[in-house]
This record gives sequence, structure tokens and C-alpha cells, in this order.
Amino acid sequence: MKVLRVPEATIGRLSVYSRYLEQLDKNGVTTISSGEIAKGVGVSPAQVRKDLAYFGEFGTRGVGYNVKDLIRYLHRILGLTHPWPVVVVGAGNLGTALCAYRGFRDRGFHIVGVFDNDLLKIGKRIQDLEVLPVEKIPEVVKEHGVRIGIIAVPQQAVQEVANILVKSGVEALLTFGSVAVRVPPHVIVRNIDLTIKLEILTFYLNFRETHPATWLEPNI
Amino acid sequence: MKVLRVPEATIGRLSVYSRYLEQLDKNGVTTISSGEIAKGVGVSPAQVRKDLAYFGEFGTRGVGYNVKDLIRYLHRILGLTHPWPVVVVGAGNLGTALCAYRGFRDRGFHIVGVFDNDLLKIGKRIQDLEVLPVEKIPEVVKEHGVRIGIIAVPQQAVQEVANILVKSGVEALLTFGSVAVRVPPHVIVRNIDLTIKLEILTFYLNFRETHPATWLEPNI
Repeated sequence: MKVLRVPEATIGRLSVYSRYLEQLDKNGVTTISSGEIAKGVGVSPAQVRKDLAYFGEFGTRGVGYNVKDLIRYLHRILGLTHPWPVVVVGAGNLGTALCAYRGFRDRGFHIVGVFDNDLLKIGKRIQDLEVLPVEKIPEVVKEHGVRIGIIAVPQQAVQEVANILVKSGVEALLTFGSVAVRVPPHVIVRNIDLTIKLEILTFYLNFRETHPATWLEPNI
Repeated sequence: MKVLRVPEATIGRLSVYSRYLEQLDKNGVTTISSGEIAKGVGVSPAQVRKDLAYFGEFGTRGVGYNVKDLIRYLHRILGLTHPWPVVVVGAGNLGTALCAYRGFRDRGFHIVGVFDNDLLKIGKRIQDLEVLPVEKIPEVVKEHGVRIGIIAVPQQAVQEVANILVKSGVEALLTFGSVAVRVPPHVIVRNIDLTIKLEILTFYLNFRETHPATWLEPNI
């Protein structure tokens, strides 16, 4: 079996590059160098070339990249050649914010169902969706072929919701907070931990006070 | 000037380690090996040792770490030796979810002000806070010595809010979405981009279908 080792930060940057290139494409730009991409998104040109090279050679040396081709190439890598139906579990403030987030739809993520077990929330409308009871998850997942679920419920309910989603056939989960979720090996889980982000800020704020003579080289 | 190069992923893991250790400490655990920490949080023992070594030698070889000492050491690195007052700008669904998030308070982040420019939101109560008009930001920042601001407003308003926060003396910003914010060099900005996280999921879902014979080594 071939082994490929791609830093996850690279995948994140490919996502950023592709959005930047789409913007350029809309503005009529047809070719671009790695240096221009780098400047546009705020990383080094070497980083851009390295990130793009993980998945094989692309572009002609000295000529730069064709913008449309590079967008297609990145979309193929990121799996964005077709839209993705997504379900959101939890219709509280976070779930409501997620359903309203236009950035998802712009990138082909369509929220096709939002669920809660709170009788006060079930039946409410969020955007163009009606909040459905959690029992409806398997039906909606099956109907739309949903593979991605976002879990926006209180921490103590995250594992239970993950179990329901996985049992319904969902293969990838996005969670919030700091709860470790146990899932079968075929299920991909990524987590957004707001506290970690704040502690990265306090780390830098604290570091420059306690180490005024040390330059902390950014390496994101 | 001394130069230190610490991957930001290391800072994030130090935050994770410290929370795990606090849990153990509560449960009466007094010493721990890097292997046990690694197992507890799901990384390799070598990674734990490497992460802890960036900031100097710690622990005695073969004996493991004293849990309380290691917590203190990590808190010192992360700047968590005192609580941090934080302001949230935007009292929509996202801002409300952030104000309600208990994970912040548990780690010493105290939201001391929430602001909006929507007359329908100003005066509303979120948790124990009254939503204040944006004009009150400088006053609250000064009163509480706030250095961290969270921006939870629509994308087109992010830069304007960042300007107000920076002018008020805030030195670190947490933003959402995909807007690049221009700030003076002394201001630290970190961003949570939900779309990137979803595209990391689609990348993996897509990759295992299109490359069934390649093992993609996780490297987070």
C-alpha cells in the first residue's frame, strides 16, 4: 500500500488557496504565480509550492498556474466537485448560527436537516428548515445521502448524538468543545475547540511580556 | 535576540494536556508519564515529550511528571496564572452561544461585556450580562483591562469592529469566517474558519474513495 503523509495544515491551506483563486477567477484573472498566491493569502511562496506538490506536479515552471485549472485541481483534492448535504444536530444558539452561516452554502455545503430533542425547539423554523425531532435523523440522512454531521448540542449529549449519526450512516463529524468522542475507525471526527484558540492568544500575550528579549517565530 | 520557533499546534496541545492533567489532579492522580498523557489525549508519547521540551527541561527521566507541577508549568507557559477578561462583539446567535459557553469560564476566561449596534438587541440580557451599544466598548475595555476581544458580527462588519477594539486597547482578536482583518503589528489575530474544518472532512471522505490503495497517514 502506498503511504502519503500530508500535514492537516496543508489541507486547510488548500481550502484557503481555492477560495482566494475563486475570487480572482471572478475578477477575470487567468494566470497566477505561487508568489502571488502566497502574497494574497499571507504565507510564503515556498509554502504554497510545497502544499501544491503533495498531490503531484502541477503548473509549468516559470509560467505560473492557470487559475481555472488550479481551482479544478484543488476542488478535486478537497472533494468539492459536487455539493455536500450536511445535517446539524442541536437547534440552540450555536446550531442556529451554523444554519444561518452563508459561508457553508457558498462552498457547496447544504444543510438539509436540523434536529433537536427539545419540544420547544422542534417545529420552529431556522432559515428555510423546520427543526425536526432527533428521531428523524436516520430518515433525513438516508433520503439525502448525508455523510457529514455537525454536532452542536451540550457537551454531555455529544456522544449520544454521535452514536445516532454514525448508526444512521454518517461518516464524518464536526464537534465543538472539548469532549473526546468515541466512534468506529471508519468515522472521521474533527473538533473546534474555542478555548484552545483563546489559549493560543493568551500564550502569545503572555510570552511577549515574560520573554521580551526572545523573538517567537510565527509558524502556524 | 534569542529566537524560538514553536509550532502553533504545540501550543494547542499544551492547552489540551493541561486540561487533561487538571482532570487527573481532581481525581487524585499525583504523578504521570509522558506515555500516559499521550494515551489520555490521543497523541504519541514522543509528541508529548517534544511539546513539553520546547520550553526547557521538565520532569525527571524515569520518574514521570508531578501532576501539580506540570499543570503549574503549563499554566505559566499558556499565560493562565490569572483570569482573563474578554469582550464579545455581536449579540446574534453566535455571540449568544459564546456568552453561554461554560468552557470559557472553566478556564478563567470571563466575558465582561457583550456589544451590538442593533437596537433590538441592546438592553437584552445574555446570561448575567446586558447587551451594550458598541459605543461602550472603550469604556468597558478600560474598566476591566480587557486585552482579548471576540468578534461575532456579520463578515462585512468585522474590520470595523476590529478597528474599534484595537483603538480601545485590545491586543488580541478571535474572529470567525474567512475575512482577513488588517490590524497593527502588535495585535494578534486568530481565526476560526468553519468551512476549512468541513473541507478537511470532505478531503478525507473523498481521498479514501479516489485512492483506495493509498494509506493517508494522519498528521494533525
